[in-house]
Amino acid sequence: MGTKKKEVLNKIQQLGMGIINEAKQQKNPHFEVPIRSLSNIKFDAKKRIIQMGNSASKRFFFNVAHIKKFLQTVEVALTAKELLEEDKHISLRQTFYKMRRTIPGTNIDVVEEQKESNDAVEDLELISGFSREQLNINANKNGAAAGKIIIKDKGDTIDWSKLGSGGWAIPSNTEDIEFKKVNAKFILYMEKAAMWERLHEDKFWDKMNCVIIASQGQATRGIRRLIKRMNEELKLPVYVFVDNDPWGFYIYSVLKHGSISLAHESERLAIPSAKLIGLTCDDVEKYQLKRHIIKFKDVDVSRIKQLQNYDWFKDSKHWQRQFKMMKNQKGKVELDALITKGISFVSEKYLPDKIKKKDFLD
Amino acid sequence: MGTKKKEVLNKIQQLGMGIINEAKQQKNPHFEVPIRSLSNIKFDAKKRIIQMGNSASKRFFFNVAHIKKFLQTVEVALTAKELLEEDKHISLRQTFYKMRRTIPGTNIDVVEEQKESNDAVEDLELISGFSREQLNINANKNGAAAGKIIIKDKGDTIDWSKLGSGGWAIPSNTEDIEFKKVNAKFILYMEKAAMWERLHEDKFWDKMNCVIIASQGQATRGIRRLIKRMNEELKLPVYVFVDNDPWGFYIYSVLKHGSISLAHESERLAIPSAKLIGLTCDDVEKYQLKRHIIKFKDVDVSRIKQLQNYDWFKDSKHWQRQFKMMKNQKGKVELDALITKGISFVSEKYLPDKIKKKDFLD
Repeated sequence: MGTKKKEVLNKIQQLGMGIINEAKQQKNPHFEVPIRSLSNIKFDAKKRIIQMGNSASKRFFFNVAHIKKFLQTVEVALTAKELLEEDKHISLRQTFYKMRRTIPGTNIDVVEEQKESNDAVEDLELISGFSREQLNINANKNGAAAGKIIIKDKGDTIDWSKLGSGGWAIPSNTEDIEFKKVNAKFILYMEKAAMWERLHEDKFWDKMNCVIIASQGQATRGIRRLIKRMNEELKLPVYVFVDNDPWGFYIYSVLKHGSISLAHESERLAIPSAKLIGLTCDDVEKYQLKRHIIKFKDVDVSRIKQLQNYDWFKDSKHWQRQFKMMKNQKGKVELDALITKGISFVSEKYLPDKIKKKDFLD
Repeated sequence: MGTKKKEVLNKIQQLGMGIINEAKQQKNPHFEVPIRSLSNIKFDAKKRIIQMGNSASKRFFFNVAHIKKFLQTVEVALTAKELLEEDKHISLRQTFYKMRRTIPGTNIDVVEEQKESNDAVEDLELISGFSREQLNINANKNGAAAGKIIIKDKGDTIDWSKLGSGGWAIPSNTEDIEFKKVNAKFILYMEKAAMWERLHEDKFWDKMNCVIIASQGQATRGIRRLIKRMNEELKLPVYVFVDNDPWGFYIYSVLKHGSISLAHESERLAIPSAKLIGLTCDDVEKYQLKRHIIKFKDVDVSRIKQLQNYDWFKDSKHWQRQFKMMKNQKGKVELDALITKGISFVSEKYLPDKIKKKDFLD
């Protein structure tokens, strides 16, 4: 067992001992749980990430309103302890099933639906200060990577430049990956697997000395943590390549500043130095992509308004300019539209030009 | 360029020359397109796959009702020709953008929405006899693989047993993969990436000498073709591991018999010898999983009825028995519910027992 795992296990045991000691002293056993509500979340303008405030509430054993959540917290701690001791990982869904048992002598289940076990996992993250991945509970698996880097994972040495057309499948948990040899100068993350395949076939990462990573839609925690670690530990700049629409821009926003629902994880997941490489509204004009605008629905337009008002966008002239242009465009432009300029236009012209001119949005 | 690629290119050129020759002879240029409607699709009880019949229609150039589709067919053939000559691949979405141009001197677009370009791709598959992958047009990328096999792809030699916790990311196009060294005895395909991660962490493929492959939900064409090829070329049995519900059973059905919408591709994609390893309704009883039944909605129950009436299920006593039990269960049981029997129950007991006893549904 690694030092880190021992540390996590110790923390869980401490929590358990705390309860036992309170009980022995005839006190009301309790946990202190940071409050996960909008009122306790703020944008740290200096760090440029979304963070939780210091508000916390106490959860007591002898309190009819608290007891079920108290029990769920203990149950998930027990699950994490077992997982850490056996050195095994399970998913959130599997955690739900593992926790779902009837309390002996009653007809009450510890958890009835997955929302309860998910909440318990988040509470334990907050109480223990460790992420669910460190508690051996994994989020979703998705995404592929290729490029000029050699990693070590589970005893295997894996060269991301020698994995054929498929690339390396990114696991849900990227906590323990070691970076062995790095020839990459930056990371290009994109939201579309089809774009990744296009760039990969053109050996973009070979010509440009980089790493390319794709999810399908929103990046998983595993992908975010992996990119964050490469950014922090290897000092690689991160460029985000998404559709020109509010949803694409929000994928960038989450990668860079974190998200409200995972505000307590921003320190581990957010990448404040990440930059948007495209598609910008200026690209749409410069490369005559207006012909490929797909008309917005009402929901898209109101999403733009929400984005405009986020703390991290609202005082930025160049972002407000983008949102205004996007509104005027009246529709979105997908990454795939770049194919109209030539099959390899994106890998040979568009991206190299942008990188050379440092033409990013930040 | 490989022999196969030349063959595809020749076929496309032949199609083009056919049109030119008809025009030169002052005939009305035409294509013969097999009909893709339910009336022209049947279940071949001997081969045990869904296939297309022989009905075909003629599509003429000088016919107001045909001309647009005629043009779209030529346009997609042109796209495929360019892709093959440049040895590049694009996605269906990218194909749509590539085909989307205004016909000079008019305000009519070759294609207005992706359905049209998708249809054109399918038509070209039917007319040419080559799959979209062979035409260098890729479907979706998804899924991961691990196990006792070494492949060669795009010049890289990839050992699926040495890829850490992530595994190999399966590409959208698995046509050109070479199988170099095979120590696997069977393929286990599952519909859940979280189950794949659980089995992978337990090194199930190492202990059982196999390959494990997962998608998230329905298998992509790339995954189906890959498993099909391993089944056919390497003679590896295929076991399918899905949720105990009509949707899981249908994933099995598509893998084994093919699907109605891709009936013309069954010969390349369907695996008639594939077997369902679980979860069966008998498993739900045997392993006391009834406690984890999730109540069906109306849509689930009517889906069971549809499945019951499929040609390949309706005369099978044991399948009808399963569907009846599933109806009586009144709900589904997910693969993840096996975790309640122990974190590694699925890899150490459930699957090994099933394989040892050849306890499959076929």
